Amino acid sequence: MLHAEAYDEALAKRGTTNRYTTFTFAEPPKELVLETGQKLGPITLAYEMFGTLDPGKDNAILVCHALSGDSHVAGDGGWWDALVGDDKAIDLKKYFVICANVLGGCSGSTGPSSINPATGQPYAMDFPVITIRDMVNAQARLLDHLGITKLLAVIGGSMGGMQALEWAISYPDRVQSVIAVATACELPPQGIAFDEVGRQAIIKDDVWQKYKGNYYGKAIPEKGLSIARMIGHITYLSKDSMKEKFGRRLHDKIEFDYTFGDAEFQVESYLRYQGSKFTKRFDANSYLYITKAINYFDLSRRFGSLQKAFKGVKATFLVLSFTSDWLYPPELSKQLVAALQANGVSVTYVNIESTYGHDAFLLPNETQETAVAGFLKNQHERFRGALP
Amino acid sequence: MLHAEAYDEALAKRGTTNRYTTFTFAEPPKELVLETGQKLGPITLAYEMFGTLDPGKDNAILVCHALSGDSHVAGDGGWWDALVGDDKAIDLKKYFVICANVLGGCSGSTGPSSINPATGQPYAMDFPVITIRDMVNAQARLLDHLGITKLLAVIGGSMGGMQALEWAISYPDRVQSVIAVATACELPPQGIAFDEVGRQAIIKDDVWQKYKGNYYGKAIPEKGLSIARMIGHITYLSKDSMKEKFGRRLHDKIEFDYTFGDAEFQVESYLRYQGSKFTKRFDANSYLYITKAINYFDLSRRFGSLQKAFKGVKATFLVLSFTSDWLYPPELSKQLVAALQANGVSVTYVNIESTYGHDAFLLPNETQETAVAGFLKNQHERFRGALP
Repeated sequence: MLHAEAYDEALAKRGTTNRYTTFTFAEPPKELVLETGQKLGPITLAYEMFGTLDPGKDNAILVCHALSGDSHVAGDGGWWDALVGDDKAIDLKKYFVICANVLGGCSGSTGPSSINPATGQPYAMDFPVITIRDMVNAQARLLDHLGITKLLAVIGGSMGGMQALEWAISYPDRVQSVIAVATACELPPQGIAFDEVGRQAIIKDDVWQKYKGNYYGKAIPEKGLSIARMIGHITYLSKDSMKEKFGRRLHDKIEFDYTFGDAEFQVESYLRYQGSKFTKRFDANSYLYITKAINYFDLSRRFGSLQKAFKGVKATFLVLSFTSDWLYPPELSKQLVAALQANGVSVTYVNIESTYGHDAFLLPNETQETAVAGFLKNQHERFRGALP
Repeated sequence: MLHAEAYDEALAKRGTTNRYTTFTFAEPPKELVLETGQKLGPITLAYEMFGTLDPGKDNAILVCHALSGDSHVAGDGGWWDALVGDDKAIDLKKYFVICANVLGGCSGSTGPSSINPATGQPYAMDFPVITIRDMVNAQARLLDHLGITKLLAVIGGSMGGMQALEWAISYPDRVQSVIAVATACELPPQGIAFDEVGRQAIIKDDVWQKYKGNYYGKAIPEKGLSIARMIGHITYLSKDSMKEKFGRRLHDKIEFDYTFGDAEFQVESYLRYQGSKFTKRFDANSYLYITKAINYFDLSRRFGSLQKAFKGVKATFLVLSFTSDWLYPPELSKQLVAALQANGVSVTYVNIESTYGHDAFLLPNETQETAVAGFLKNQHERFRGALP
């Protein structure tokens, strides 16, 4: 089953019971200062923990989720069940895993759908623009709260990988290792373009327009959000996986119906279904804010060059990319690897053969699992040895 | 300048003066029987002619346009000015060129925005589904009207190429040669997917919904149509041409504004502009019908196999593709070439090196120009020799 699809079904399965714990911080007047200079507080992060923290606190792994993810990384319906669990690559018998819904999200953490304490109403578009760095700063506060000084590893794919990179840069002393999967130091213009069309679809939606984005409790801009999700799904699959999965096969028919109503092709039916389903679990404004955070992430711009960006980094890296990923193509991982190596950072890179496109990172994949398991084992031994 | 952009500017330049001539046929009760079995009539085609028809009628070339094109292929603001004109590859000093707006279009030919004689109102969604074959059958009636029995060549790119293939199949005795550029015998599922998202954006538009597609004279579904066009533009460019043209450069600023209002990146500004401009010249329902025609085109399905599709073909072929075209990738042209060769059809194939993506076929390109000019010269000589 493909990523986002598995994801949605897993989430649906989980029903409405919240499995997460919340942590609230940055109460006024001690708001969090965001990268833009704006202040935000209080902030709640919804997080889940899996496995057991060793007394030496040397086995904590932070998992960072992608655009539409949440804290439920493992267990029943977990979005990265392929990788995280008992006897899996991130073995919950050995490691302690923390995963938090990102700042700006809509699965328990503070985001545009949260109540703005200044007005008693949802923030909507008054929510401040947030960046990957802000997401990471919020996660650092959560780790403080949990008493975890240094992580064995930060791991994430796609936008989660951006957070992992940000961790290594912003908190060099708190990260033993980084696993950056199907990610980039900056999204190329084609990725920005797809995100922008998705955002425009949401913003142009008549519901969104009617309420100027403050549609909470009234209606949802489901037309725009479903269009955005359909575009997303095209970019998560590869040309080849689309061919394998759907080809030009018709949907529930032998001959064309020659209609604009029902889907003619399976791929149309799939996209309509995915688009519609997404609107039932995700907030359109969170989609706006989170895609913006992805688009703003640009380490070369911020530091003058990619090489300079990783200057103070102390973590050891595992970088994984997938040959058919055209949203976060392998060449971006290669640029990351080159910049790390230029700084003398120890890095292992594997470009994994796969036809599944960007989705590949969320699917069972032996090469990925072996690489992650081996890297973690090695890092765990090193981390233990380095501890007093 | 890139294709669709050049296209739009050329069209804007031309103003409101219609340069085309019209031909009306299929008056009831002699309606045209469409591929779906439905009847349609009367039908008007808007067409333009360039150059001079030789007395022997051996120099007539039919140019078929792509999704958003029209009859104005050459001359001031012509959309294929790079290829068609005096002393150009399709030399108007030598050849006589005919180009008609397709059936289903919105630039003078009968389409969903035309008046339905049965009601005195625009057809809107009562317009019958049309196919590439229907477009070609209508063009054949136009050639009858012009007294042109056999064409020296049919040439088209993208959807225009599909029409050229259809000509060779449906009217084997009326086509001396075919030039099929950046096209396919069937669009792969990724292309259907992009078209479907564009259609859904239009159909979900509140204006379209309010009038159930019959918005003529009231309002236009410009939100949905602009989203569809934005998606289109992403697929017409390549990853590399996007990088060259825009990179991650900001739009009219040095630092991020951190806003959802104005475009932050040049690529966002470009897409917004192109989307908006398109709504001023193109009918949303034509967009629905024409993309459907493209999606339905499937020679393997219709004939049982691609080899069988070209069984009775008599034309000589020139097939051109572009290395960076990911909407109509070169492998589709190679499949076409293989199917032609399997039938003993004479075919020349050139996969042209270019970073411009699908747009490449509309841009000045020496390799394309040389190939077309040489092929036409040769075909012209052969055609003349074959004439009594």
